[in-house]
Amino acid sequence: MDSKLVLYNTLTRRKETFEPLVAGRVGMYVCGPTVYGDPHLGHARPAVTFDLLFRYLKASGYKVRYVRNVTDVGHLEHDADEGEDKIAKKARLEQLEPMEVAHYYTERYHRAMDALNVETPSIEPYASGHIIEQIELIRRILDDGFAYVSNGSVYFDVEKYNGKYRYGRLSGRNLEDIVANTRELDGQSDKRHSYDFALWKKASPEHIMRWPSPWSEGFPGWHMECSAMSMRYLGERFDIHGGGMDLMFPHHECEIAQSTAALGHDSARYWVHNNMITINGQKMGKSLGNFITLGELFAGTHELLAQAYSPMTIRFFVLQAHYRSTLDFSNEALQAAEKGLDRLMKGIEALEKLRPAAASTVNPAELEERCRAAMDDDLNSPMVISALFDWVRTINQIADGRETISEADLDALKRTVHRYAFDILGLRDEKAAGAAAGRDYVTPLVEMLLSMRQDLGASIRLWSIF
Amino acid sequence: MDSKLVLYNTLTRRKETFEPLVAGRVGMYVCGPTVYGDPHLGHARPAVTFDLLFRYLKASGYKVRYVRNVTDVGHLEHDADEGEDKIAKKARLEQLEPMEVAHYYTERYHRAMDALNVETPSIEPYASGHIIEQIELIRRILDDGFAYVSNGSVYFDVEKYNGKYRYGRLSGRNLEDIVANTRELDGQSDKRHSYDFALWKKASPEHIMRWPSPWSEGFPGWHMECSAMSMRYLGERFDIHGGGMDLMFPHHECEIAQSTAALGHDSARYWVHNNMITINGQKMGKSLGNFITLGELFAGTHELLAQAYSPMTIRFFVLQAHYRSTLDFSNEALQAAEKGLDRLMKGIEALEKLRPAAASTVNPAELEERCRAAMDDDLNSPMVISALFDWVRTINQIADGRETISEADLDALKRTVHRYAFDILGLRDEKAAGAAAGRDYVTPLVEMLLSMRQDLGASIRLWSIF
Repeated sequence: MDSKLVLYNTLTRRKETFEPLVAGRVGMYVCGPTVYGDPHLGHARPAVTFDLLFRYLKASGYKVRYVRNVTDVGHLEHDADEGEDKIAKKARLEQLEPMEVAHYYTERYHRAMDALNVETPSIEPYASGHIIEQIELIRRILDDGFAYVSNGSVYFDVEKYNGKYRYGRLSGRNLEDIVANTRELDGQSDKRHSYDFALWKKASPEHIMRWPSPWSEGFPGWHMECSAMSMRYLGERFDIHGGGMDLMFPHHECEIAQSTAALGHDSARYWVHNNMITINGQKMGKSLGNFITLGELFAGTHELLAQAYSPMTIRFFVLQAHYRSTLDFSNEALQAAEKGLDRLMKGIEALEKLRPAAASTVNPAELEERCRAAMDDDLNSPMVISALFDWVRTINQIADGRETISEADLDALKRTVHRYAFDILGLRDEKAAGAAAGRDYVTPLVEMLLSMRQDLGASIRLWSIF
Repeated sequence: MDSKLVLYNTLTRRKETFEPLVAGRVGMYVCGPTVYGDPHLGHARPAVTFDLLFRYLKASGYKVRYVRNVTDVGHLEHDADEGEDKIAKKARLEQLEPMEVAHYYTERYHRAMDALNVETPSIEPYASGHIIEQIELIRRILDDGFAYVSNGSVYFDVEKYNGKYRYGRLSGRNLEDIVANTRELDGQSDKRHSYDFALWKKASPEHIMRWPSPWSEGFPGWHMECSAMSMRYLGERFDIHGGGMDLMFPHHECEIAQSTAALGHDSARYWVHNNMITINGQKMGKSLGNFITLGELFAGTHELLAQAYSPMTIRFFVLQAHYRSTLDFSNEALQAAEKGLDRLMKGIEALEKLRPAAASTVNPAELEERCRAAMDDDLNSPMVISALFDWVRTINQIADGRETISEADLDALKRTVHRYAFDILGLRDEKAAGAAAGRDYVTPLVEMLLSMRQDLGASIRLWSIF
């Protein structure tokens, strides 16, 4: 293997040549969805970003074990850890078994990922399915003296940890600043300090999701699951940890603290974060009226949307920006992406019809080199797309007879274009498939999504009189 | 609700009017796949059978919580419980993380279920994700005195249980016969009697899948997961427990014993079992060379297959037999099913084109009544199909002008046909969709299955040098 991949490591704040711990293999952990609601625009970007990395590592010859979790329990809403478990809350409101809600939304997430041509990871562990592992890890942290038990809950002792290791290395914060910026505890909390975080929470009597533990009937703190599950499936040291930038603090910072407290060293070597999305320049939020689910996007049913956008338009749009740039969704930008994708797919169709000549006036190796160099440079997918577009122009020139290509070069060009457009960028020619079927390519997907919604609608109505 | 559904209850050996514990609601638990290999013909029948029941209960107005588990751990191969954990064994052979194998085959199972138009259940719990619940249940059984600890493992005390409750009620066996038919222990076992079964097994040093417990690092016995997970999601009493007839003994018998030992009463009221499949009159088995996976069936790539059979042909074939009859797969029978399905779908197409007349010479209420009576009579899907075929003839007669139908009756007829053919039998007009797309409807599915196989092939080769 002769990979020259360079990745930006959030932990060191610089681009580093990627070197796996075990030659030829990569262990990668990425934070997956919390399944208490519909998959939305915010889910599309990390999913596509780490799918791109997964695909490129495999295409570069690595054998990758890619673990992406499903958070189906214990997601605390506030940094202060006083928030309610989101899933249990929704379940109580709807009078459903929490796992039925979680299963429903997990299904919808999977369907949306299929539509976006996001490959399934190697292992997809559920937080609720790894309570034992989380309890064992909490025990180790307690044994090492970096946590304390308070009224049935267990909290991480940030100050004590900071004395031996430094808390805040990933996000670049230091404890003094954190202390200065946090309010005093109101005396209602079991925590010693407001910046301590829960490893285990004692369940209140009305809390539905609960498990026995040495400390109380309760549930693990949100940050625990990723430390415990990455350790279980990738070992105490592994290569890449990914996620959205919004997870850097406190989630990933707490993960690092937990793993380091238990192991005495960091677990993940490269921390990779995709940047955030905005909608017409604004942060997405339910209170802002600009919260758009993927189903609404594919169907064009949100009032901010001028039309439906196909899953591949969304994927292409995400890939057109570098993953560390912010990405602004607007009708204009999405329509431009739709046109661009169409142009690329037409170029690939034209490529299939090219006739070889005796000699070449073009050099397809140039495309391979540009694409590879772009991907090796911290996954620069916009540069790959730009190189492909340059070659669409060349393909049209060959078709017009202004350039010529030999049979061997034509084969090489097809291989390169397919490799980058389909295998690595993960695009799919959904329009051609849809046109061949003589119908709108979006409809079947939308029908499926709508029918799932109706099913749940019925569930909610019926169960709520239980 | 005015349901007159009658189900054959294996426990009482007679048809009984179905009465739910809670009016309007049904709790149903069905044994799902063990994910250490490709989905095969044997998986298609229970999946379609209980999908039919799920769909019919919903169509009858019930709100159903349908739980179908995934066995990803602790499936002991032999009744004698000396067998190896199937998944761990495969994983060691392939040098893969067991959960990576389990995830891979779970994915393939889900894809096959999608192809067969089998709806996702309400909750799909993993055995490995419910170790705590299983440990808690074992503790209760130990506390009640119906189990004993031996060398780190826990065994169910069948004799003691049989003294208070009767062991063998479901399968109709009695302990005396079982004793007479089992060989003596060879002195190598930790069990007191050969018919005792493991609730918890201490893991041997080479066993990969293991969890801490009060008794040893180990893993639960296979039967535990269903008792523990049905109790967690459906409560201590629930309506229907389903599965293949091959699971009746020992699996379901042991489930009943476990639940009764812990609770003092049965959990499930109606036990529903689908009968077995054969292939050209023989039992399916790897050693017999007639082990056919669903992928092979859909692609026609097994040497016993004269052609590819589409997922809907398989579904229709399964539904053409009553679920309590044996079902023999042969090329002749499958080709006949393919023709039959085609005739039904053509009839439905013809129905869409019928023109209403001023008055009816036919009575569509007859179809609704026949279909409903058939389904209410222990899910008699062959009778539903027969009624639909009779009406295909009538539809053709209306098209020929030999009969007439009013607009209201035509609407009613369409509703009834759609309801039974699509909503309840769960058929899908894949041929029409495929024809519209101008291509073979099987190809995309097969490509997907083959590409998944290639992916795993690559994994195995690469990981095996690890």
